[in-house]
Amino acid sequence: MSLLAVGTVGLDLIETPFTRSENVLGGSVTYIALAARFFVNPVAVVAIVGRDFPPEYWTILQDRDIDLEGLQVDPDGTTFAWGGRYQHDLNQRETLYTDLNTLATFDPVVPAACSSSEIVCLGNLAPETQLGVLGQMNSPRMVLCDTMNYWISNTPQQLRSVLKHVDCLIINDAEARQLAGEPNLLLAARKVRAMGPPTLVIKKGEHGAMLFLDDTVFIVPAYPLEDIQDPTGAGDAFMGGFAGSLARERTIDADALKRAMVYGSSLASYCVEVIGPARLLQITAADIQRRAEAFCSMTIIPALESAAIT
Amino acid sequence: MSLLAVGTVGLDLIETPFTRSENVLGGSVTYIALAARFFVNPVAVVAIVGRDFPPEYWTILQDRDIDLEGLQVDPDGTTFAWGGRYQHDLNQRETLYTDLNTLATFDPVVPAACSSSEIVCLGNLAPETQLGVLGQMNSPRMVLCDTMNYWISNTPQQLRSVLKHVDCLIINDAEARQLAGEPNLLLAARKVRAMGPPTLVIKKGEHGAMLFLDDTVFIVPAYPLEDIQDPTGAGDAFMGGFAGSLARERTIDADALKRAMVYGSSLASYCVEVIGPARLLQITAADIQRRAEAFCSMTIIPALESAAIT
Repeated sequence: MSLLAVGTVGLDLIETPFTRSENVLGGSVTYIALAARFFVNPVAVVAIVGRDFPPEYWTILQDRDIDLEGLQVDPDGTTFAWGGRYQHDLNQRETLYTDLNTLATFDPVVPAACSSSEIVCLGNLAPETQLGVLGQMNSPRMVLCDTMNYWISNTPQQLRSVLKHVDCLIINDAEARQLAGEPNLLLAARKVRAMGPPTLVIKKGEHGAMLFLDDTVFIVPAYPLEDIQDPTGAGDAFMGGFAGSLARERTIDADALKRAMVYGSSLASYCVEVIGPARLLQITAADIQRRAEAFCSMTIIPALESAAIT
Repeated sequence: MSLLAVGTVGLDLIETPFTRSENVLGGSVTYIALAARFFVNPVAVVAIVGRDFPPEYWTILQDRDIDLEGLQVDPDGTTFAWGGRYQHDLNQRETLYTDLNTLATFDPVVPAACSSSEIVCLGNLAPETQLGVLGQMNSPRMVLCDTMNYWISNTPQQLRSVLKHVDCLIINDAEARQLAGEPNLLLAARKVRAMGPPTLVIKKGEHGAMLFLDDTVFIVPAYPLEDIQDPTGAGDAFMGGFAGSLARERTIDADALKRAMVYGSSLASYCVEVIGPARLLQITAADIQRRAEAFCSMTIIPALESAAIT
């Protein structure tokens, strides 16, 4: 199935206890596309950059078969820029700055060739911009959506409008609690799904991810890693792997969604191994597949009969 | 296989944001035995109480086929008492007091009938006391052991001596990090296993538990609950379910250990639903089995072939 991803392309400053990197290729759609492209080609993107966007970054994306027709260049603006600092345990992130720049007036235009994309990934963006994209789509088969605390706090009504059109919302545990106003994750999931999305994925960082579907919960752990360098983009890489996996399947059913959870987790686990999206540029399809299969061996419960107590 | 559990029997004060309960039947061996008795009968315990230990609590344990021959009563002492307060998210616990009382001079005596028990559970206790028990055992098939931050900080050498005799250490993530002096859990697990225990279980509370065995990791999520009343004893209930499940199996191999992880998680999930051990007194074997089976449906990854990228 064809896949369109909408979101930000930006230039990041990333500070961790180990290193400081400037002008790193970043943004939600960058990570989504670099993860999804292992599953479907081409992955089309809709985003905006400014005149300062480095040509070598353009080349990186183009060389990975990412369709950049929908990547607008604002000749009068500069590229969205974000800076973040991680504390020692890498779970706490402090935003150093968020310069919207050309993103402030971004009016997304979906190329005609992409308006019939079957899977639409709405990366983290202003809900109004997400709605603007959906308005240009020709009844997509599945709309996946991310958001963040800023939009939950500041544009709740617009976010609610988006959620009515979302098939699968993919957010982290803190966002789910905030959106629902409910600390218990199960209860929060119920409230969030009542806002629209029949399917909900709650990402819990190093503790894995939960899929809420019909009356069931499906849980995938995070891949245990000895060395985590940078969590930036891991959630977007998850979304890209998740969406890519769905796009690769003929039927989107519970099993396909569970497999998508595993591939999303596989991509996210690679993403955090190196600063920025660099690891996503090094790995191969075989790496992703190998790690996806490792999730099975880490979680398969043997038949319970021999210990059954009834 | 026969099971002997050693640890504390105490009287707890438990404060949560919802309620305050005094004189609650508590202690590590109480929870271990009340969980393990669903799998094997009788479960023998070695512990000590004082003259104030309520006869109705004695009856509760006796009625559940727990062998109390090794439960010493110190006619001159009062029972070990512990008070704890949980914050709103129930993940943070503040110790209000720890009165060792009769536990301070506890010299464990393993009844002759129990010295050949095949599985020994060393609940949280002074390492010296744990060693004292092991010295009375006749080559048990499997020694399981718990400990806590207090012993890791204050009696590191004695704890190291215990660990050399332990087949499977069951501790939480903070304890593993502290014991290893290493924040990364995978690296911490490697260091802890180098201290003796070939098998290691790291409990992560609401985020599940990890089993380290040979070169593999096995991960079980926590059972998602809508309402958690009191985490007290959940780790001990896990150990009881884990040990009980192993005792029920004829062969202790990787599959048996994985099943034990699931039964331990099932018991722990019930334990937290009500203050103190009350829920462990209400549930049936069928409840435990049903929830153990629910873990399978929550975690089974469908065959990856249809989305495979290589």
